Amino acid sequence: MIEVALGIDIGGTNTVFGCIDKSGKCVLTGSLPTQKHADIEDYLNDLFADIESAVEQSSEKLQIIGVGIGAPNASFYTGTIENASNLRWKGSVPLVELVKKRIDVPVVITNDANAAAMGEKLFGAAKGMNNFMVITLGTGLGSGIVVNGDLLYGKDGFAGEVGHMIVRASGRECGCGRKGCLETYVSATGVKRTVYKLLARHMGDSELRDIPFSQLTAKMVAEAANRGDLVAKETFTYTAKMLGEVLANVVAVTSPEAIFLFGGLTKAGDMLFKPVAETLEDQLLSIYKGKIQVLESGLSDNAAVLGAAALIWNKK
Amino acid sequence: MIEVALGIDIGGTNTVFGCIDKSGKCVLTGSLPTQKHADIEDYLNDLFADIESAVEQSSEKLQIIGVGIGAPNASFYTGTIENASNLRWKGSVPLVELVKKRIDVPVVITNDANAAAMGEKLFGAAKGMNNFMVITLGTGLGSGIVVNGDLLYGKDGFAGEVGHMIVRASGRECGCGRKGCLETYVSATGVKRTVYKLLARHMGDSELRDIPFSQLTAKMVAEAANRGDLVAKETFTYTAKMLGEVLANVVAVTSPEAIFLFGGLTKAGDMLFKPVAETLEDQLLSIYKGKIQVLESGLSDNAAVLGAAALIWNKK
Repeated sequence: MIEVALGIDIGGTNTVFGCIDKSGKCVLTGSLPTQKHADIEDYLNDLFADIESAVEQSSEKLQIIGVGIGAPNASFYTGTIENASNLRWKGSVPLVELVKKRIDVPVVITNDANAAAMGEKLFGAAKGMNNFMVITLGTGLGSGIVVNGDLLYGKDGFAGEVGHMIVRASGRECGCGRKGCLETYVSATGVKRTVYKLLARHMGDSELRDIPFSQLTAKMVAEAANRGDLVAKETFTYTAKMLGEVLANVVAVTSPEAIFLFGGLTKAGDMLFKPVAETLEDQLLSIYKGKIQVLESGLSDNAAVLGAAALIWNKK
Repeated sequence: MIEVALGIDIGGTNTVFGCIDKSGKCVLTGSLPTQKHADIEDYLNDLFADIESAVEQSSEKLQIIGVGIGAPNASFYTGTIENASNLRWKGSVPLVELVKKRIDVPVVITNDANAAAMGEKLFGAAKGMNNFMVITLGTGLGSGIVVNGDLLYGKDGFAGEVGHMIVRASGRECGCGRKGCLETYVSATGVKRTVYKLLARHMGDSELRDIPFSQLTAKMVAEAANRGDLVAKETFTYTAKMLGEVLANVVAVTSPEAIFLFGGLTKAGDMLFKPVAETLEDQLLSIYKGKIQVLESGLSDNAAVLGAAALIWNKK
């Protein structure tokens, strides 16, 4: 019998689950589409049928000691998902309560970036760190902040929305209804928008001129940059500098020892990390200079599920 | 015999001390000039001679159970003051060690804004709050942030430098050596600078045109605004709006339930508080809207000393 935490990552497209033992080993994993069910009860029925079947088929007997869930707009305190724009279930969804009806163990929910931060602390590159931050760079920009060894949830469980710091007054339109939020610049989507801004500004050739906006991906931009495309290269410099500038301001609030970058965009490697670290260092208040590392996440496969499960193992 | 915590506030001009009982009552108080002594040992000798004499003369017998100190650039973790620009003692001053030589009780040091935040929590308007922030508006702008019920110190004990968030790229020169820091706009000094900016921009009459920069105070600006002076009024609106905007971004990081404004500038009252609260509310991400109060500090007399003493009482 192995004790495991069940980690569930509810993404806009897929839901991934896994059973994680205390050492961070992923014992089993599975997934299903998130958007198939209009009704949350139907979704959970399918999800838990899949989980039960996977657990039964496992070669080792598993005891699930708790369920950790990472989800968009999730509140740790209320156990609810609140008006998540990229999910079909609208309003306030009492997810913890609904899960507890299906499995009688401790159930914890938080947003995916907070889960990633706890995963980094327990199983990744932030072991032994009590003050650090994880920035997740996907379609949007998420942030999970650990202070004094614990996740910073804030009053309502919604702390860590660095992606919605306004960095340009009257800047780019954001999905949140406001303008100029960091994630409209620093994210996979932000990279696309910057490409088009720069294509408009410059006269020179760029292979990106042949790709329609709807088909362009941040990966294509990174590949073009690696082939020397000037617009693609400038896009990454622009993105990284803006991130570095904002991180210098966030450091003035939370004073972490390290900032981890996580997610698809980090595959750009040095093209992203180097100007982020340089801009950050340049912009830091002197008392912080030379003290803040910008690091790659130490989680690779199953990162989201590891993070979700870490919410449970952290309390053991 | 009454148990008291000795609170010491080391300001650029004066050092104020006081003995505070568990209820927050100030049993005795005293002060001496901070800058009289070039040598820190001489300063501490004089300070503790004054304290001992005051304690001896007290009508009640006092037992000092600990010493809390608020000082500029103070690190909670190392117990040192690091390169404080407005003090005569340069480099790294091991203040906790030097104080412990003089009185053998627990000694805690932090910056004055952190002390103010802890004072607010124990003795002021933040009783029962576990996630809030105090912004001190004096010559500069300080910030003390409480999360999960504890001060946010960060890795090196230097968290909470909201005054040094850069809010305007290539903006006003700051004493920290950089440009565009919040405190160059939002502080007593920032108010003066804004007056001169607006006097340059506008053509209209203003009583402030008769006052040289070196003699102008934020108090004069507030008084002029109360008399209807347009430049003075616009100065406060400009200052408050900028503070509201930045606070909206800080909320996205820490998600507090309330933000307390503290210090000389808050005497401007509604002229400051109203546009701060309005701009904050307007700029907030929807999940925070309607949830963040902007409040006056509940500490009045001896606030700095109460805050310093609260560092000790908080741990009892």
